[in-house]
Amino acid sequence: MENHRAGGPAHIDDVARRAGVSTATVSRSLRGLDRVAPGTRQRVAKAAEELHYVASPAASQLASRRTHAIGVVVTSGGRWFWSEVISAAERVLRGAGYDLLLYLLDEASGRRQFFDLMPVRRRVDAVLVLAASVTTREQEALREVDVPIQLVGGRMTGSGSVRIDDVGAAVTATRHLVALGHRDVVMVCSDATDPSSRRTTRLRRTGFDRVLGEHGLTGRILSTHPGIDGGAAAAEQLLSQGDLPTAIFAEADELALGALRTFRRAGIAVPDDISVLGFDDHELADAVDLTTVARSPGAHGHSAAMQLMATLGPSPARPTDVVLPTRLVLRGTTGPARDGSAS
Amino acid sequence: MENHRAGGPAHIDDVARRAGVSTATVSRSLRGLDRVAPGTRQRVAKAAEELHYVASPAASQLASRRTHAIGVVVTSGGRWFWSEVISAAERVLRGAGYDLLLYLLDEASGRRQFFDLMPVRRRVDAVLVLAASVTTREQEALREVDVPIQLVGGRMTGSGSVRIDDVGAAVTATRHLVALGHRDVVMVCSDATDPSSRRTTRLRRTGFDRVLGEHGLTGRILSTHPGIDGGAAAAEQLLSQGDLPTAIFAEADELALGALRTFRRAGIAVPDDISVLGFDDHELADAVDLTTVARSPGAHGHSAAMQLMATLGPSPARPTDVVLPTRLVLRGTTGPARDGSAS
Repeated sequence: MENHRAGGPAHIDDVARRAGVSTATVSRSLRGLDRVAPGTRQRVAKAAEELHYVASPAASQLASRRTHAIGVVVTSGGRWFWSEVISAAERVLRGAGYDLLLYLLDEASGRRQFFDLMPVRRRVDAVLVLAASVTTREQEALREVDVPIQLVGGRMTGSGSVRIDDVGAAVTATRHLVALGHRDVVMVCSDATDPSSRRTTRLRRTGFDRVLGEHGLTGRILSTHPGIDGGAAAAEQLLSQGDLPTAIFAEADELALGALRTFRRAGIAVPDDISVLGFDDHELADAVDLTTVARSPGAHGHSAAMQLMATLGPSPARPTDVVLPTRLVLRGTTGPARDGSAS
Repeated sequence: MENHRAGGPAHIDDVARRAGVSTATVSRSLRGLDRVAPGTRQRVAKAAEELHYVASPAASQLASRRTHAIGVVVTSGGRWFWSEVISAAERVLRGAGYDLLLYLLDEASGRRQFFDLMPVRRRVDAVLVLAASVTTREQEALREVDVPIQLVGGRMTGSGSVRIDDVGAAVTATRHLVALGHRDVVMVCSDATDPSSRRTTRLRRTGFDRVLGEHGLTGRILSTHPGIDGGAAAAEQLLSQGDLPTAIFAEADELALGALRTFRRAGIAVPDDISVLGFDDHELADAVDLTTVARSPGAHGHSAAMQLMATLGPSPARPTDVVLPTRLVLRGTTGPARDGSAS
């Protein structure tokens, strides 16, 4: 599977010969570097064009020590979230002439292997990591690659980051339920054990507990597996125990969607019998009228990519911690607590 | 932003000097090539280890003319579909030691620019293209890169492909509606103009028209913009015209989800007043009980990546056209046609 063919692509030597200059001059000239006289630059460009010469990325990489690629490392599930983040980031990176090397580490083994081997080494100019949490060991592995690191969803000392205020967003969401008269609220959380999921759960739970505490209430926590099926299972458990709260706050929209499915099938009216509130504003939250906390994955991806580009520019910007806004989107799944429910 | 640092990583020259061999021998030896005596190979490995030498991918690329990267080109929307395809493909490719270079061309301008510039040239060992249709000009551009091409969703002469039988799947779906007594059926189609969307629409419509024709019926076609909002707009148009069919066949689940939202808000009962049938088995179709045609994006990604690996192996396999099965998933949004609806 050799790319070299008889009568195949022209080589830099051919261009140098035709232009009457050294290969180093061809290389410098085609990469737009200084120290090449305008007349020479023109001669080289003409020769390259006539020979249909295409610079080998591998060769020009070695010369410039730049790879013009950005490693994008996704450490956790949430297909909808990461695909939106990457779409937005890719647009910025492509516009700036960078390729995107994608590493999806949605299993614990894949994550471990990645940080052990660090396949991005010498292969990328920077790394964009989608993770709410990066362990100390992983941070060390990343720093060892010695390129700028940009986090999406979490923080890391010395690196740029883009995230939301999870505690504050959960406070706003819980206040909405309390204001509607809900006193018996269950927070449905994911029992995923990866560092990112655990951190997200902890932060959102902190906001939930804080608001209930301010009102002298104690919220219940129900842990379940992630995704739609996890939310459905949590709702089934509440139903089978005959212990339905007046409201559910799901830490992710998928969990809320699963709960809604269970309630619909069981003939439980939402929001008359029970209110359901999610987190994320998943693309389909609107389709099922789910009240939720919106964060914009597109804004995360765009902001992270712009920060990285600034870091790689001629006068590198200092890494900053960007906290993007969230907002409570009121739709049809939350309403006043049902009668006689106040504890 | 030079990677080279004083006291930094060891270079191949250092390893060659310590092992007492040429740099070419170090390179051949570390890449596991033949023509290196076992004793020499051991000496090189020991020297490399002592110096913590890490081969530069760019340098070993030049030597082997292999990049160990696969270009993955996504030419159209459907975030859910492509993120599932890529997740499955990435797992196979990573397991085989390949990196994944991602190009998301979800705008017409991005697609044009990609095929004009072909940034994958000399950068990848193969290209995986997610597209139901690739224009003649695009096919020429791909072939010029001179690496194996693998299509997901469509076909291309001389390349491997993984797809479904869109016509057959639409036939099965439409037969289900006709068997339930539906005589007035509207197919909701996307008006997207990219080649892939147009081809998909044409094929699914062919199946729809065929079944209705067999029963002496004429189906109505309603074109709308893609996505949930497009489906919602189509349903609103039918409602405002007071011209509700007894069933809707949406060519994509997103369109069906939008229609369901409109009907729920308007108090139209599904399936009592109207049946709704989708296509794709989107991850959330189950959450809203949508009857739909299931295809497995994970199976698409896995099969495509396995085919590519076989093509790149020591005894390259011939490209094949794999047609994956689809199945009708019966859920709660389809039922018998309402009384007096037969035309």
